[in-house]
Amino acid sequence: MVPPPAIDVDVHGVTDTTTLTTPNPLTINGVDKRRAAYPKLAAGIAAVADVDSFKGRTQHLHKPKAHRWDHRFSAESNARRGNSLKGAAKYLRNPGMISLGGGLPSSEYFPFDELSIKAPLVGQFSEPETHENGKVLTAGKHDMANDISLFDVSTAFNYGQGSGSAQLLRWIIEHTEIVHNPPYQDWHCTMTIGSTSALDMAFRMFCTSGESILAEEYTFSAAVETARPMGLNVVGVGMDGDGLLPSSLDEILSNWDESKGKKPFILYTVPTGQNPTGTTQSAQRRREVYKVAQKHDLIILEDEPYYFLQMQPYTGANAPDVPPPASHEEFLKALVPSFLSMDTDGRVVRMDSFSKVIAPGSRIGWITASQQVVQRYVVHADVSTQGPSGFSQLSLYKLLDEHWGHAGYLDWLIHMRLEYTKRRNVILDACEKYLPREFVKWTPPSAGMFMWLGIDYEKHPEWKGEGKGKSILDLEEQIFQTIIRHGVLAMKGSWFYADAGAKHDTLYFRMTYAAAAFDKIDEAVKRFGEGVREEFGLPPLESNGSA
Amino acid sequence: MVPPPAIDVDVHGVTDTTTLTTPNPLTINGVDKRRAAYPKLAAGIAAVADVDSFKGRTQHLHKPKAHRWDHRFSAESNARRGNSLKGAAKYLRNPGMISLGGGLPSSEYFPFDELSIKAPLVGQFSEPETHENGKVLTAGKHDMANDISLFDVSTAFNYGQGSGSAQLLRWIIEHTEIVHNPPYQDWHCTMTIGSTSALDMAFRMFCTSGESILAEEYTFSAAVETARPMGLNVVGVGMDGDGLLPSSLDEILSNWDESKGKKPFILYTVPTGQNPTGTTQSAQRRREVYKVAQKHDLIILEDEPYYFLQMQPYTGANAPDVPPPASHEEFLKALVPSFLSMDTDGRVVRMDSFSKVIAPGSRIGWITASQQVVQRYVVHADVSTQGPSGFSQLSLYKLLDEHWGHAGYLDWLIHMRLEYTKRRNVILDACEKYLPREFVKWTPPSAGMFMWLGIDYEKHPEWKGEGKGKSILDLEEQIFQTIIRHGVLAMKGSWFYADAGAKHDTLYFRMTYAAAAFDKIDEAVKRFGEGVREEFGLPPLESNGSA
Repeated sequence: MVPPPAIDVDVHGVTDTTTLTTPNPLTINGVDKRRAAYPKLAAGIAAVADVDSFKGRTQHLHKPKAHRWDHRFSAESNARRGNSLKGAAKYLRNPGMISLGGGLPSSEYFPFDELSIKAPLVGQFSEPETHENGKVLTAGKHDMANDISLFDVSTAFNYGQGSGSAQLLRWIIEHTEIVHNPPYQDWHCTMTIGSTSALDMAFRMFCTSGESILAEEYTFSAAVETARPMGLNVVGVGMDGDGLLPSSLDEILSNWDESKGKKPFILYTVPTGQNPTGTTQSAQRRREVYKVAQKHDLIILEDEPYYFLQMQPYTGANAPDVPPPASHEEFLKALVPSFLSMDTDGRVVRMDSFSKVIAPGSRIGWITASQQVVQRYVVHADVSTQGPSGFSQLSLYKLLDEHWGHAGYLDWLIHMRLEYTKRRNVILDACEKYLPREFVKWTPPSAGMFMWLGIDYEKHPEWKGEGKGKSILDLEEQIFQTIIRHGVLAMKGSWFYADAGAKHDTLYFRMTYAAAAFDKIDEAVKRFGEGVREEFGLPPLESNGSA
Repeated sequence: MVPPPAIDVDVHGVTDTTTLTTPNPLTINGVDKRRAAYPKLAAGIAAVADVDSFKGRTQHLHKPKAHRWDHRFSAESNARRGNSLKGAAKYLRNPGMISLGGGLPSSEYFPFDELSIKAPLVGQFSEPETHENGKVLTAGKHDMANDISLFDVSTAFNYGQGSGSAQLLRWIIEHTEIVHNPPYQDWHCTMTIGSTSALDMAFRMFCTSGESILAEEYTFSAAVETARPMGLNVVGVGMDGDGLLPSSLDEILSNWDESKGKKPFILYTVPTGQNPTGTTQSAQRRREVYKVAQKHDLIILEDEPYYFLQMQPYTGANAPDVPPPASHEEFLKALVPSFLSMDTDGRVVRMDSFSKVIAPGSRIGWITASQQVVQRYVVHADVSTQGPSGFSQLSLYKLLDEHWGHAGYLDWLIHMRLEYTKRRNVILDACEKYLPREFVKWTPPSAGMFMWLGIDYEKHPEWKGEGKGKSILDLEEQIFQTIIRHGVLAMKGSWFYADAGAKHDTLYFRMTYAAAAFDKIDEAVKRFGEGVREEFGLPPLESNGSA
């Protein structure tokens, strides 16, 4: 049987949906058809985005609506009323109205006539290829008035909405739908100025001083450093090689002693290539975690900067590589499904970011969550961060929408997948070569930037048992200094404690293979190995790399 | 007598300052000399800026040190410890060290080979001139390694410090010193992602829910909308044609009833071209306000987006214009001195922004405050906003530092001064022509974007006295709707109440002359006048503009 064509059945303005069949999920090919079903995007200065048209007005009607989260918002968030001046903008729809209202500068005083970036052609993604034959993408000042483009300097460089420009937001929403297709009706996206800021704002939206939040027991240190000053306790949830343990999560919540504080309802997690442990939750693991979240009515803050740094399977030092994905479909299918993709309740606030797959300096990310949550986020953004830089938004729009399109971007992500696979393999090969297996343990990461090296401190010559002589933290510092002396910097595991006050019986170091040149990675791991050998009283390696 | 040359007497590495005379203030010409006294700026990925060298190590030693503000920081701010991972960066100074530490992506995976902007030549600033003969400024990916520039794509597009890049920060610090020369030793600057965000962060740094802050009785509505959800009460301070009244400020504070809440110590003020009233505090007014701030130990949040929109004196409809400033010195001297320039105590947190003088879409501003305050700000920025977009920073660096330099930027600001003067004169001429003086009052603004029109509601036919019939807010809404019907949007004064709960006996509308085309401004004011005439029972104007 031939499957029905994967197109969007949206019809602009349709309200009687009873006769519609369940639409097929949006694919890359469906994007053009959906766009064609709506009037050409015309979004001027600080225009409000028509998100429904970007999602397709009938595409998601067969799905359940998100739960309401009124009981979860903080007093601060509940007190946000939105901007009265923006309310006045509705009068600008009156024909012939002249505005002396909003205090926006005239673009004639922006000292820029053009913005250009030089970017790779699809399939010729390497740095030398880009330098050689990259395409210069130019945005003119008045390209919209001159019918050259849907976005231009005069609009992008003026004030915008807290949600970001309609132009780039449309692409982001389409991309999110192609990859995750959230299984509830009223999902929305809004841009952030990066996930670090999004996390700060999410905590303020949901939490109040004195409360607790949940996170992996080793977690992104900036998350803890964001939460603690707000008076939030971070409770560490147990982990294994598949990341966060649903049993640990359930146990903490089921046995929570309310007399010691309100039961937490925010779970902060990095499901893919977790920082610092490099673990990735399997699909099954995520389903189990989601069930626990439903049981205890949690909000999941799904922080996914490394989602597209999922790599090819590791086959070992001298084994042949697994062939790369043969198509966009195969690539997307190879990705672990996100929490967002299984979020029937609208309880996930997913944070995406361009930092690891385009450039951190763009300071553009986005959240996907229920309309209610997104709306709470935007009213805060409107009076704090505002939207991302117009220079960044215009550059990314030119690259992602006009130049690469969704297909070209997936090609880029496949390129990134293979590049990170190479890097990961270099560090794993080096670990095999240089690290003493009897004292150092690791699992090949399947995603992200990080290797997590467990040190068997109980075998350390100076370990005398708990409470006797040197502590785990003492030994960690001692090994750290020895490694520094050998000329390599790795991060101490204790810097990533979710709760520094909790008892820990593990000792780790984090290494990244994302930044250094390939030959330096090998040398660095060698030095690390020498440091560990010295600490554990082993003789130095021979120069050929064997003990 | 010939004055000593206006150069910087800094000598790199000098520690014995006893023999130094008081240095002359930094001037544009002194910048090159100062830069030459230090090693060439070499600031790689996420490099920490050496602010002392940007300020000149001995330039400010003769000044007093800032007061300490330990008693003013909030619990949230006091709890900020800074990032432990960033602490590890110090080991990277060890020669030969290889880093597997920071999780920064390699720039080889940024899909950009170049960023370019086309910008005006100095003195040819108009939009058509820029289009015709603007210069294309290009940043290459590896311009730093190739010794082409001090800043490039590979660095600007990676992660940075919360303070922003050293490259642009140096320019900002020099600019701040040339314009304001703060009279205390340990002033610092750090970039913000715009003053709206800076204000949100400043409130969190100093204030705690339940406290009060002070602001002009009509104030920037987003400031109130930022403060209220944090549980802060905004207390309105009286104003006159010169803006904030020191006597009102002193009275409020001297008579504060501590049993009703902690005495406020934050004064939020827009001293120049205030939003919405358009008032500008004179130099004398500022000195008086500063004295009251000293008396009550206030922190002044000096929000100055319109500082460089100070205009030429208004000479009336048919009088000749005042000639433009003949030199940079004359231009700078014509500016009202800032609070920062008289801040001997380091009690001012000045917020500057490129939004009104370059482009809002840059999302770059900066604060100037004591080192202690700036450091508190940066540790928050590091785990929330981070620094501004690298696309924006690189573009502004190319424009301001490499292309225009400080001199060219002042020329640009003089250009802006004259352009805004023209716009302001157009709206004032229109007001003279079309508004019934017996019911509408205004003062020609000397800075900013706003006209503030006082309506004599007591003469309105439907005003029956307070508490009888229609209220001021009723009449305001009625006039607003009539004006809308006449085809012009102006903002209601009540949207700018600092404290909507306080008693008000004034009725205002705000108009901006910043955005609309010149001929539209004239037409819009005409319509406004027609609406007011209708409301006050006057016959419509003749088509020649006279009653």
